[in-house]
Amino acid sequence: MSTVNAALRDQVDRMERARIRRRSRFVLTDEHVTLSHGSGGKASRNLIDGLLLPALGTTGHDGFEDAAVLPVAAANSRLAFTTDSYVVSPLFFPGGDIGSLAVHGTVNDLATAGAMPIALSLGLILEEGIEVELLRRVMDSIRAASADAGVTIVTGDTKVVPRGKADRLFINTSGVGLVKPGVSLSASHVRPGDRVLLSGSIGEHGIAVMLAREALDLEADIRSDSRPLHHLAAAMLAAGSEIRCLKDPTRGGLATSLNEIAHQARVAIVIDEAKIPVRGEVRAACEILGLDPLHIANEGKLVAVVAAEQADAVLEAMRATPPGRDACVIGEVLEQPQEMVVVRTEAGGSRVLDMLAGDPLPRIC
Amino acid sequence: MSTVNAALRDQVDRMERARIRRRSRFVLTDEHVTLSHGSGGKASRNLIDGLLLPALGTTGHDGFEDAAVLPVAAANSRLAFTTDSYVVSPLFFPGGDIGSLAVHGTVNDLATAGAMPIALSLGLILEEGIEVELLRRVMDSIRAASADAGVTIVTGDTKVVPRGKADRLFINTSGVGLVKPGVSLSASHVRPGDRVLLSGSIGEHGIAVMLAREALDLEADIRSDSRPLHHLAAAMLAAGSEIRCLKDPTRGGLATSLNEIAHQARVAIVIDEAKIPVRGEVRAACEILGLDPLHIANEGKLVAVVAAEQADAVLEAMRATPPGRDACVIGEVLEQPQEMVVVRTEAGGSRVLDMLAGDPLPRIC
Repeated sequence: MSTVNAALRDQVDRMERARIRRRSRFVLTDEHVTLSHGSGGKASRNLIDGLLLPALGTTGHDGFEDAAVLPVAAANSRLAFTTDSYVVSPLFFPGGDIGSLAVHGTVNDLATAGAMPIALSLGLILEEGIEVELLRRVMDSIRAASADAGVTIVTGDTKVVPRGKADRLFINTSGVGLVKPGVSLSASHVRPGDRVLLSGSIGEHGIAVMLAREALDLEADIRSDSRPLHHLAAAMLAAGSEIRCLKDPTRGGLATSLNEIAHQARVAIVIDEAKIPVRGEVRAACEILGLDPLHIANEGKLVAVVAAEQADAVLEAMRATPPGRDACVIGEVLEQPQEMVVVRTEAGGSRVLDMLAGDPLPRIC
Repeated sequence: MSTVNAALRDQVDRMERARIRRRSRFVLTDEHVTLSHGSGGKASRNLIDGLLLPALGTTGHDGFEDAAVLPVAAANSRLAFTTDSYVVSPLFFPGGDIGSLAVHGTVNDLATAGAMPIALSLGLILEEGIEVELLRRVMDSIRAASADAGVTIVTGDTKVVPRGKADRLFINTSGVGLVKPGVSLSASHVRPGDRVLLSGSIGEHGIAVMLAREALDLEADIRSDSRPLHHLAAAMLAAGSEIRCLKDPTRGGLATSLNEIAHQARVAIVIDEAKIPVRGEVRAACEILGLDPLHIANEGKLVAVVAAEQADAVLEAMRATPPGRDACVIGEVLEQPQEMVVVRTEAGGSRVLDMLAGDPLPRIC
């Protein structure tokens, strides 16, 4: 079996000449994505080698194998692992797009575990017929966002489904990161007397996406706050050893994050409405739409529960970073009423702040 | 701020009574998935705490945080990281379903890197209106498949998109695993003289899914070969230090895996058609459909390139495991014709085996 027989030689010669053409053909010339691009065959390679890998700054032979293998240097570290799918509509909105959101959202989930991101994966589900140009824009945004966040996309997967079986483009990003020894963040560590800190103004992402749908006939200069928060989280962890937990108040907004903490820790959280930063445009849009900014999604904010004696130091560390410039203490943890969030209103009253039952803003991320 | 004022006390009392009802309400009573189940609010918790976590054998308070933190014991290990989205249609087919496939596919991608899986993530994209019962069946299958494979789902995410914007249910599973010191699998290690080993018969998954679509008016007793392969891979690695690479020939079939190896290693691969196990029903179905079994997807097979002197030992180790019972040597690696796969046919001729340009079987996984 160590030689190729003569009858084959002619065929091979023809193929070898063809191969020269074929190798230069891993370029994507199509204008629209077709089912063949999800086949695992040549059309898939054209998409992967001709667009996806170059867009990420990676090329062919050294591109993705089925799994990436990463050196994990720090012996005593623990691994953080997270996943999120992104189905935001529209795909592009002021301040971001589905690509940058998919990078920031997963980086931020790692940040809430106190982890520094090592690597992200990228899973694409494409609807047959979408413009290759649209995909290129999203990939460029993914590259820019991951470069900005200092993380690398190390493995990926692409599926194509027939027209009408998806809404243009869905993205899944999963992420792995390292948690330093001694760092242990969990809502279950929260206890009465702790302070609640918020890194900045709320409601911008949700309202920006909602207005971008143009179904509302509202205009306002509101941009998504989508941004990576792992450096902010690292600065906080360096400033305070008694940070109980971090949350990024995305879907369901700050109200949901606080309720989850109160529920998990079996405590009460009392916040002062007057202390919660809300930009004027966001407040106005919420009033018109009958929404509470506390229920609106954010993609660039952290809420932290910190031991009272370290609250000032952590706050100072937050304010020294760009994403935490407007950080403030918004409330504290009490023993009772257990598993509830109470808002002291600007008018001097109080109200219980619950999670929403339903969804004021579907497909916000 | 350390006490709650009197005006609030009544409201809190009412809420506390309500809370007792609410806590027993994290049960999913809906029959269909609605957009609210993707909101991040209470309906989401009903879905997550009332169905998803119990189905995985996990419960509420100790359920998913935004990221899972995993201890990584082995100091010198490297981390394998992979992702795959699953859009198979139909969702259920002989031998498996989208849930078991999502577990096996990602476990097997880790296995091809020589890694033992540590943990999987689970990202669900649900179409509004799908039956909760269907979701329950898929979750039960995910639990059974992950228990069988000995891996744990440690983090997850659920999105819901409006009716008509997805095809019932898409799943992303990402996975992390540990690669032992000294294990380094890559097609770039393949060299002339190496042997090509295959763990068993080909084409069953693709044909089983295709026949399950019922568009073909064909009946045959063909079941998907979907199964986890990490124990097979571990047995191979224990038997041979000179395993160059492992591939699981999924989309695009064995032909695509072999072409990828030949391309990446810049070698020729020559295989003997007569040595490739194909079950009679699969061969017959392929003949009727005009398909080559070499292009059909598998979900329970490994192809390995091994140094010639270790081929027998590795083969023996494969045959000692259930998924490798029918393993065989199917060919060898030559220097020329570079970057090509050549099949010696049963009739005594030879043909060049290329990747397909397009897709004979869309949405096979």
